[in-house]
Amino acid sequence: MATPTRIGLCGLAVMGQNLALNIAEKGFPISVYNRTTSKVDETVERAKREGNLPLFGFHDPESFVQSIQKPRVIIILVKAGSPVDQTIKTLSAYMEKGDCIIDGGNEWYENTERREKAMNELGLLYLGMGVSGGEEGARNGPSLMPGGAFEAYKNIEDILLKVAAQVPDSGPCVTYIGKGGSGNFVKMVHNGIEYGDMQLISEAYDVLKSVGKLSNDELQQVFSEWNKGELLSFLIEITADIFGIKDDKGDGYLVDKVLDKTGMKGTGKWTVQQAADLSIAAPTIAASLDSRFLSGLKEERTEAAKVFKSSGVSDILSDQDVDKKKLIDDVRQALYASKICSYAQGMNLIRAKSIEKGWDLKLGELARIWKGGCIIRAIFLDRIKQAYDRNPELANLLVDPEFAKEIVERQSAWRRVVCLAINAGISTPGMSTSLAYFDTYRRERLPANLVQAQRDYFGAHTYERTDMPGSFHTEWFKIAKQSKI
Amino acid sequence: MATPTRIGLCGLAVMGQNLALNIAEKGFPISVYNRTTSKVDETVERAKREGNLPLFGFHDPESFVQSIQKPRVIIILVKAGSPVDQTIKTLSAYMEKGDCIIDGGNEWYENTERREKAMNELGLLYLGMGVSGGEEGARNGPSLMPGGAFEAYKNIEDILLKVAAQVPDSGPCVTYIGKGGSGNFVKMVHNGIEYGDMQLISEAYDVLKSVGKLSNDELQQVFSEWNKGELLSFLIEITADIFGIKDDKGDGYLVDKVLDKTGMKGTGKWTVQQAADLSIAAPTIAASLDSRFLSGLKEERTEAAKVFKSSGVSDILSDQDVDKKKLIDDVRQALYASKICSYAQGMNLIRAKSIEKGWDLKLGELARIWKGGCIIRAIFLDRIKQAYDRNPELANLLVDPEFAKEIVERQSAWRRVVCLAINAGISTPGMSTSLAYFDTYRRERLPANLVQAQRDYFGAHTYERTDMPGSFHTEWFKIAKQSKI
Repeated sequence: MATPTRIGLCGLAVMGQNLALNIAEKGFPISVYNRTTSKVDETVERAKREGNLPLFGFHDPESFVQSIQKPRVIIILVKAGSPVDQTIKTLSAYMEKGDCIIDGGNEWYENTERREKAMNELGLLYLGMGVSGGEEGARNGPSLMPGGAFEAYKNIEDILLKVAAQVPDSGPCVTYIGKGGSGNFVKMVHNGIEYGDMQLISEAYDVLKSVGKLSNDELQQVFSEWNKGELLSFLIEITADIFGIKDDKGDGYLVDKVLDKTGMKGTGKWTVQQAADLSIAAPTIAASLDSRFLSGLKEERTEAAKVFKSSGVSDILSDQDVDKKKLIDDVRQALYASKICSYAQGMNLIRAKSIEKGWDLKLGELARIWKGGCIIRAIFLDRIKQAYDRNPELANLLVDPEFAKEIVERQSAWRRVVCLAINAGISTPGMSTSLAYFDTYRRERLPANLVQAQRDYFGAHTYERTDMPGSFHTEWFKIAKQSKI
Repeated sequence: MATPTRIGLCGLAVMGQNLALNIAEKGFPISVYNRTTSKVDETVERAKREGNLPLFGFHDPESFVQSIQKPRVIIILVKAGSPVDQTIKTLSAYMEKGDCIIDGGNEWYENTERREKAMNELGLLYLGMGVSGGEEGARNGPSLMPGGAFEAYKNIEDILLKVAAQVPDSGPCVTYIGKGGSGNFVKMVHNGIEYGDMQLISEAYDVLKSVGKLSNDELQQVFSEWNKGELLSFLIEITADIFGIKDDKGDGYLVDKVLDKTGMKGTGKWTVQQAADLSIAAPTIAASLDSRFLSGLKEERTEAAKVFKSSGVSDILSDQDVDKKKLIDDVRQALYASKICSYAQGMNLIRAKSIEKGWDLKLGELARIWKGGCIIRAIFLDRIKQAYDRNPELANLLVDPEFAKEIVERQSAWRRVVCLAINAGISTPGMSTSLAYFDTYRRERLPANLVQAQRDYFGAHTYERTDMPGSFHTEWFKIAKQSKI
């Protein structure tokens, strides 16, 4: 090959293959490499098949690196953690000053910051870029969240703008996120929000199926209908699809045969841990994580169901008498209101980290680049962008005038659904915790005064007063003892 | 001083002073030291005043260390983190092979394990010992959770057995917890459980006050009454006390003047983060942490209250018509049932860590040593001990036959209280999340099948089936697309 390619990509599992083909299809000649070389040949074959795309395969790292024009840019898509370190070591041996590596995996942001520092010492640049959209998004247009050296971002901005999902009226789903590990961090919270969305949808499904007794056909209709309104989103759309699919291995619908155990890969856990670290309440996201944990205890749940069935707990369900149409409408509203709370938590988590790290992240801009390509893409994100456009300093999405109005309109339905579920003996942890978040956040006076009084009682932790400044301590025990005499 | 003392204590803030006096009072001559030497003199004065106790003060670390009999044992009670490292460095310079340092602070368990290793290299022993009970407990009998070298524990077992709180029929509130940082870890979870208890009590207070319109006098009566039954505990007792205390700076009751902002010191946060790390659902403890976070946003809450008040959200409260006596009884039951869930989460977190680290912790024994001295001491812990005595392999406290029966008896009241609060527009995040935990755990079939189907749809994460073994992947998108044509 005489002319150098524009960019390289290393790590050719499905995501890597698809992203490479996407880049090639946009007219950027690309070099690809994978340690297991059969993957290289596979990708080259696909490039031919999918339209003779300008994609060039290499079986050794040296010729791979040298085939790329300088300053070189190489995207790596390998498993997070030590495979990334290994890949960096292999490639950087052949790279030169000013070259750049972009990690496109779901990496812990601190690993990216550590690597960026190490790379800088070699004169190399580094980006951590969140890529959302799954295999399909990678091929046809993902949402891209690149963070790290701005100079490196500028080197490939033209590629990213074309490769990312394109959304009419709001442009390509990519922006320079910020310094250091900010791209990874934002992608992590995106995934946490995704956990929340999926949990809330599953609760809507549960209430409609368990209490409303809707069939899969009816569920498909309901979700298809919802996908025409304020809930319009990728996840609602695929949920409608799922209810329509028949079991290919037996009778009935496939969704009913899928085991109720949800897997996970770590980003939801990190989101919850970071929220705790930054003193941000993120109960909806935490509830979705806990639900995944409890879903995994299938055998324990089966045993527990036996224990409580015999004492009549599960019979509550049959007592319910419901108006199906009203229930469907209520559940839609409960889902929407809960979703606002979940996004409020995620956005506030990002802002808290941005302040801690000095990243200066633009929340409205993040909502914009999530509008297409990624798993949480939704019409709803427009409203978030608008809220931050109206007021970039907005303390919480809940108090944006538009969202506040939407919540007020939906709160009765929201309360009805949660109470209905509670009385039916089924749990809607995401919806009920979202409601508690709302009712806590909008409360001027919480019972936290009692907790603080307790802390001062047993630990002399002191307290503030409502009516005067200062820090106070009371000898509660002594006073109580005296009054008892 | 001619005869060496039996033990030393370094770090003479109130906790340290009190623990030293406690040890001296039990007949063990003790040496004390503090960097700020006025604290040493203060402690010596107190020892004289409080009964000529055998306590000896030192103004320099060398003579302090050398005053103690070999093998020396020194308890340090300084701030967690680098002050501990600093103190170890100072003291160990004068210590000899076989001597032991015991850190009595709320230390992150990994720091203890790191220090134990470093101490071992010097031929020294190390223990991390959780101490609960606040200032009062330290003086009169705390709950002690020592972990680390068993040999070191044995050297001072006689002291600890006498210094710890004594509970009739169940002995001193101390036991050798296990290796490494297990003592700190158990104390951390103890604190997480304490967060949960305090949150649940504050919610009971909130419902009784906001919905039931109970006065502080009535609240005092209710909590005093509750403290005679199944809820008998230190925290319920001090809550009753708190409602009885008048404001010394104005009219009315002090509790009403305490600002509704709750502080925290880190162990609750660690508990939530560890739960996420170990895939243990701990939503009640997490809700209590989130409530502390939200309590801190007083100014934001005041603003949010204005936003939503104008739209009538907070008016819901006045619509309620309640039978006070029945409400009080319902709230008691809801509190108790929620408490079972909270302890189930904490115990399962400890077990998961014990398995991960090979600590072989005895859950029933932990319940026993929490029965006296510590903040969460309660008659309730007897029931937990009995549950683990009946079945040490109990998967979850919820399915112990006694607890299961208690929950079944209380579940109607529990559901009523949570729904009442929801309809009153106030939040009971701890109680509602506990209920959701219960309803999730006892459910054989959760809607997690939909979440897993979604994950397989967009990420090819595969799924299991209910009716056959194996791992499956479906081309959901392709099938849905075909059926739409």
